Amino acid sequence: MAGLVREVITREEAIHFVMENLAYPWDHLIDEVPLEMIHGRILAKPVYSPEDHPPFDRSLRDGFAVIGNDTKGSSHSAPSFLEVIGEVPMGRVPELTISSSQAAVIHTGGMVPPGADAVVMVEDTVVAGRWVEVRKSVQSGENIIHKGEEIRKGQLLLEKGFLMDFRSAGVLAHAGMSKVPVISLQVGVISTGDEIVPVSKDVVHPGCVRDVNSWMIQNLLTSRGFHCFNYGIVQDNKKELREKLHEAYEENDAVILTGGSSVSVRDFCSELFEEFSSPGLMVRGISIKPGKPTLIAGSLEDHKVLFGLPGHPLSCMVVALNLVLPLLVKSIAIDLPAPATFSFPCTGDIFGRTGVEEYIPCRIVGNGVFPMMAKSGYISALNDTDGFIRLTENQETMRKGDMVEVIPW
Amino acid sequence: MAGLVREVITREEAIHFVMENLAYPWDHLIDEVPLEMIHGRILAKPVYSPEDHPPFDRSLRDGFAVIGNDTKGSSHSAPSFLEVIGEVPMGRVPELTISSSQAAVIHTGGMVPPGADAVVMVEDTVVAGRWVEVRKSVQSGENIIHKGEEIRKGQLLLEKGFLMDFRSAGVLAHAGMSKVPVISLQVGVISTGDEIVPVSKDVVHPGCVRDVNSWMIQNLLTSRGFHCFNYGIVQDNKKELREKLHEAYEENDAVILTGGSSVSVRDFCSELFEEFSSPGLMVRGISIKPGKPTLIAGSLEDHKVLFGLPGHPLSCMVVALNLVLPLLVKSIAIDLPAPATFSFPCTGDIFGRTGVEEYIPCRIVGNGVFPMMAKSGYISALNDTDGFIRLTENQETMRKGDMVEVIPW
Repeated sequence: MAGLVREVITREEAIHFVMENLAYPWDHLIDEVPLEMIHGRILAKPVYSPEDHPPFDRSLRDGFAVIGNDTKGSSHSAPSFLEVIGEVPMGRVPELTISSSQAAVIHTGGMVPPGADAVVMVEDTVVAGRWVEVRKSVQSGENIIHKGEEIRKGQLLLEKGFLMDFRSAGVLAHAGMSKVPVISLQVGVISTGDEIVPVSKDVVHPGCVRDVNSWMIQNLLTSRGFHCFNYGIVQDNKKELREKLHEAYEENDAVILTGGSSVSVRDFCSELFEEFSSPGLMVRGISIKPGKPTLIAGSLEDHKVLFGLPGHPLSCMVVALNLVLPLLVKSIAIDLPAPATFSFPCTGDIFGRTGVEEYIPCRIVGNGVFPMMAKSGYISALNDTDGFIRLTENQETMRKGDMVEVIPW
Repeated sequence: MAGLVREVITREEAIHFVMENLAYPWDHLIDEVPLEMIHGRILAKPVYSPEDHPPFDRSLRDGFAVIGNDTKGSSHSAPSFLEVIGEVPMGRVPELTISSSQAAVIHTGGMVPPGADAVVMVEDTVVAGRWVEVRKSVQSGENIIHKGEEIRKGQLLLEKGFLMDFRSAGVLAHAGMSKVPVISLQVGVISTGDEIVPVSKDVVHPGCVRDVNSWMIQNLLTSRGFHCFNYGIVQDNKKELREKLHEAYEENDAVILTGGSSVSVRDFCSELFEEFSSPGLMVRGISIKPGKPTLIAGSLEDHKVLFGLPGHPLSCMVVALNLVLPLLVKSIAIDLPAPATFSFPCTGDIFGRTGVEEYIPCRIVGNGVFPMMAKSGYISALNDTDGFIRLTENQETMRKGDMVEVIPW
């Protein structure tokens, strides 16, 4: 299958090539979580509204349910007088009916009684005995939200693959879902590199640095709804790496190898990825900066995907965010809209190159975006920023004031 | 203490008034979480760098460690020739020293050997026996990141109160923190309203609607690092509400009452909040739209704070996001910078009023922001949007093309 391997293709091409060769979307296992724990989880089934919302014509204000026409021309100096015939109880169907020149006390969220077609706000009234003085006219429908006006029965509320947050909880609560089906997709992360030592190591020997990438990837994936297991650090040794890689392959839906940035380790990884089949290694190199030395392999038969990411923390995260995450999401649902990006005028020049897609960490201040140039080894480059500026393959150097695309965190 | 209560003040005034009366910041309990689970948690102690990063002069490329001056003027047609005296091992201190006209093989992340001051990329070289032909000049420092260039020993990496994500994991890993202290702050949520029924209820009787607010609040608070417990729904009954409120008060650092939007329930809540002391009820009403009927109470002695939020889902969330969350964060650290906001030209007119701070859900498309006008009862109003447009108390109607402030989710 080695003939299939694509060398240094664009990120878009890589995504489509993998989707096609692995016949996305796949079925994944489904977990069920209580409604209070949906934030950051991926919805496993589309949700449709079981009923209209609101389920009845509902008052948006405290005040009086009236016939709008009865208040025509009402003002402070020329009020209308309506007879108060009762009160709409909360949570129950009102037993009264409003006829001409009548009104009923109603609370926010109460059901508009038959006959009434508007609500006068309590602030615009004065009550005198069984009469209410209306000092402002209301039109038919005013201060009322009609049955089904917000959500229709059967309407699609959330798509399969949607990354949920507190806002999704509102529509799921409306749909009566106290338990929510979520995708269970397990990713294994392996760090490589003879110079990489565990975070827990108190003393870092000269020439070594602590493992950074696997922890960033793990937190990123967890925040986007995936389960993640950290297999620790493997030395630059082909045999050990093969064993760990196969262990992780068996135990996960996806495996991410990170840190093998030196040529020798990249060669190891490439050879190891080639050992898989159907199709095995698919992509060797992406025309992206930073992040070029990226590998993608996978198995259509086993429904597994493997990523080899560059070792620089910044390069690693550019690829994790813009290639790994989209491909994991595509394995669940292929037609989800891409996350929103924004457009801002650039506050300085950015030196770009055609033929390469470039990502520059940036800070947004008001309506301007500052490119934060950083050497690609920087751990902290992302921490003080708001997102990436993306220059497409067709964009060259951008000048101060040019509009650039920003992908927020 | 009733004389202390402020009626309908601005959101900013309310925040400062509460901070002052409750003598923020408070000490909270601290949990410890493993580094792979820090996303969405609040850092409980400031983190300083225990060492320089990188801890040594480090190569950013695969190639050859050289003396930059030796490559002066090198090009494809006029290369320099350097003697390769060995290879820098990964993860160890090199035992060789580079003298004039010498070079050593080095990998990305390797320690730059004594004598060398630059790295030539492997792509710009050809090896011939023990000689390397250098086809491009490098300047002193090129392709090297110097010791401490990114992070200095003792430098503040993250502030107390910081809401962490995958990016924070990078600097914490650098700092050798495999366990991270996080704030443990417990919030209780109570829903009120005779028309509110539990989500789990299969059949919703006419006049009733399912509880939506408590689930949105719970997911919001959880995503922002707080523990949250849902006390369920209490009917509009002062005695029951008092009991539940005191139960939640005992068991939490903060309590949020939601749904009491009708005048009678608001009156209940206000009276119940007044029963607390030192100082008890502090704020009754905020000049914010939507969200005016908001209550804040608290106890300096017990270190507790209580919020009464309006019942409309949109009003409720405007207040939860822009008043409750900032005050919970201020109880931890008073000087944290406010979350970043953006500025976009408005794609349509927005009818604003002076004297009231207004929040309008919005969608950002490219460089324009669309205000999404919605009746305040809307559950789904937030779901399809990117954030809020905020009009300050001093802003009136905004016209198409005017720049407006946007608070992203």
